[in-house]
Amino acid sequence: MNKQSIAVLGGGSWGATLASYLVGRGHDVSLWEFVPAVADRLQKLRTLSTLPQLKLPQQVAVTNKISEALQGRQIVLCVVPSHTIRATFSSPEARRSLPAKALVINASKGIEEGSNATISQVIRESFPSAGDIVILSGPSHAEEVAMGQPVVLVSASQSPAAAERVSEIFLSDTFRVYTSNDPTGVELGGALKNIYALASGIIDGLSLGDNTKAALMSRGLMEMTRLGSAMGAHRITFFGLSGLGDLIVTCSSKHSRNRLLGEKIGSGKTLNEALAEMTMVAEGVNAARSAYNLGRELKVELPIINEMYEVLFKNKSPRESIKDLMHRHVGAEMEGIAL
Amino acid sequence: MNKQSIAVLGGGSWGATLASYLVGRGHDVSLWEFVPAVADRLQKLRTLSTLPQLKLPQQVAVTNKISEALQGRQIVLCVVPSHTIRATFSSPEARRSLPAKALVINASKGIEEGSNATISQVIRESFPSAGDIVILSGPSHAEEVAMGQPVVLVSASQSPAAAERVSEIFLSDTFRVYTSNDPTGVELGGALKNIYALASGIIDGLSLGDNTKAALMSRGLMEMTRLGSAMGAHRITFFGLSGLGDLIVTCSSKHSRNRLLGEKIGSGKTLNEALAEMTMVAEGVNAARSAYNLGRELKVELPIINEMYEVLFKNKSPRESIKDLMHRHVGAEMEGIAL
Repeated sequence: MNKQSIAVLGGGSWGATLASYLVGRGHDVSLWEFVPAVADRLQKLRTLSTLPQLKLPQQVAVTNKISEALQGRQIVLCVVPSHTIRATFSSPEARRSLPAKALVINASKGIEEGSNATISQVIRESFPSAGDIVILSGPSHAEEVAMGQPVVLVSASQSPAAAERVSEIFLSDTFRVYTSNDPTGVELGGALKNIYALASGIIDGLSLGDNTKAALMSRGLMEMTRLGSAMGAHRITFFGLSGLGDLIVTCSSKHSRNRLLGEKIGSGKTLNEALAEMTMVAEGVNAARSAYNLGRELKVELPIINEMYEVLFKNKSPRESIKDLMHRHVGAEMEGIAL
Repeated sequence: MNKQSIAVLGGGSWGATLASYLVGRGHDVSLWEFVPAVADRLQKLRTLSTLPQLKLPQQVAVTNKISEALQGRQIVLCVVPSHTIRATFSSPEARRSLPAKALVINASKGIEEGSNATISQVIRESFPSAGDIVILSGPSHAEEVAMGQPVVLVSASQSPAAAERVSEIFLSDTFRVYTSNDPTGVELGGALKNIYALASGIIDGLSLGDNTKAALMSRGLMEMTRLGSAMGAHRITFFGLSGLGDLIVTCSSKHSRNRLLGEKIGSGKTLNEALAEMTMVAEGVNAARSAYNLGRELKVELPIINEMYEVLFKNKSPRESIKDLMHRHVGAEMEGIAL
């Protein structure tokens, strides 16, 4: 792979980890971070308080000015929190310096509140002259990638050549990237799994055990597939690395912030009390609201998401929710999923 | 549900737990255990050394004589280790007392060594006058079911009525059973996942983290689906409670004996050394051999199973295996899985 010139937008754990990894792969990398204190820490101390195991190489050019990061880059890697995507790409500084026809890689996971748009839709709307957009997703806690442990992801685009280009940019002995032609499915898998991570955390908070959690994840994957399919994704995509793989890691890992937030709620805290104790964004809360609204709009049956909505926003007791889920009619396992 | 008369064959953790649960549901239950000392302990102390949290109700009639357990029962629930299935159903005592047309529920998970037959095939061959055979599978560590925690399983049969009957026999506030018309897929899901549980344990033994394990499980599910499909199962079945759900719980749970065996191997022990430290049967070892042979016979690409075969039976180093897996050609994620 030739040296690529890449601007990473977003200096959170995943963005900084990817910037660090890409420099190690021989690419030329800038890293933009919105919060001045975080950018300053990355620049001077070459690490993050939320990810002390990260050692950001000196070659990564850290900046708080987005125009500096974007100047003359061929590739833009987007890793900002999902609720800031539109503002990031629409800001006057970004508009001035976003290179037309740039390849955009999106590694942010979420659904835009209000519009219920996927992140790549938001990027396309706010950066209309972008070239191909590729989704990079899959099971990838920054904590482990920062330590050089093996990671296997998927890059998805309507352009097979763009998906393959992204695969090659990242490929190494410890980093494998499969390709997919279903960006919508890969993107939704990454966004929706956070809702089930919250639910898994609730199961942990209630000390309900591994069987219950595995059942939640299996049934969750079924309803994620139903919703995704109604939104134009291929059903099979949800059973791959984004979707299933990411669901597994997010629901079971000690590193998952969505799971942790759920655990606090399962232990009896309200959403606001639990959020007040978090230092990082938990994308699952907004994703639950968006998915609930999408389910109603598209008339898709989403029993777990509906219960999560009640628990998060209507103060329904988690025990009551689980009881209601266990009392639903049981029928054929694959109802509505026939492939 | 009317009271049913059920013989449970096999007093291991899962068999004794199901017997205990079924009595609690109001059924009339006998429990046969082959090992005299274990039968004796179940009868007198009403528990198992491998499952101290179990309190077997007095109403469960425990016996070491299979004819006593089977006498006059309408339903036979099979929970013996997979390598003993043929011997159990073919013994002269069993042959004399197996009730013709009995509904057989199979909760054992494995593939018969040598013949590579599924357990229900072995049951049908050794008990030709059996009525419907129903597979009961899904994420179900006995340790948690014995404590009354929620569990969601699937019952699968070529006869929809039989699958529904089994669902009703078990149904309660804490026990849900979905139905499926793909017994082959449900049975293979339960058998094959043990191989990936061994592989997950190896990842734990090598301290490789959650991303690696989630990638293994995702890619493992893909190859499990390819093999199952070549054996006549529906692909979608592997993405349900048996298959995915059981894979999740077996690969991540501290209760999984297959995962534990793999962890010992990942920490540097040989298969024989690791087996010598186990008190319970780890079905994954034989399943790995059978699946390896099936893959060659049916010409299905099974990269993870092939590596597990090398590690278990050819002393290949686990680190070398992971390196080889990470170096394979990366292509489209869903190659060979198009649904």
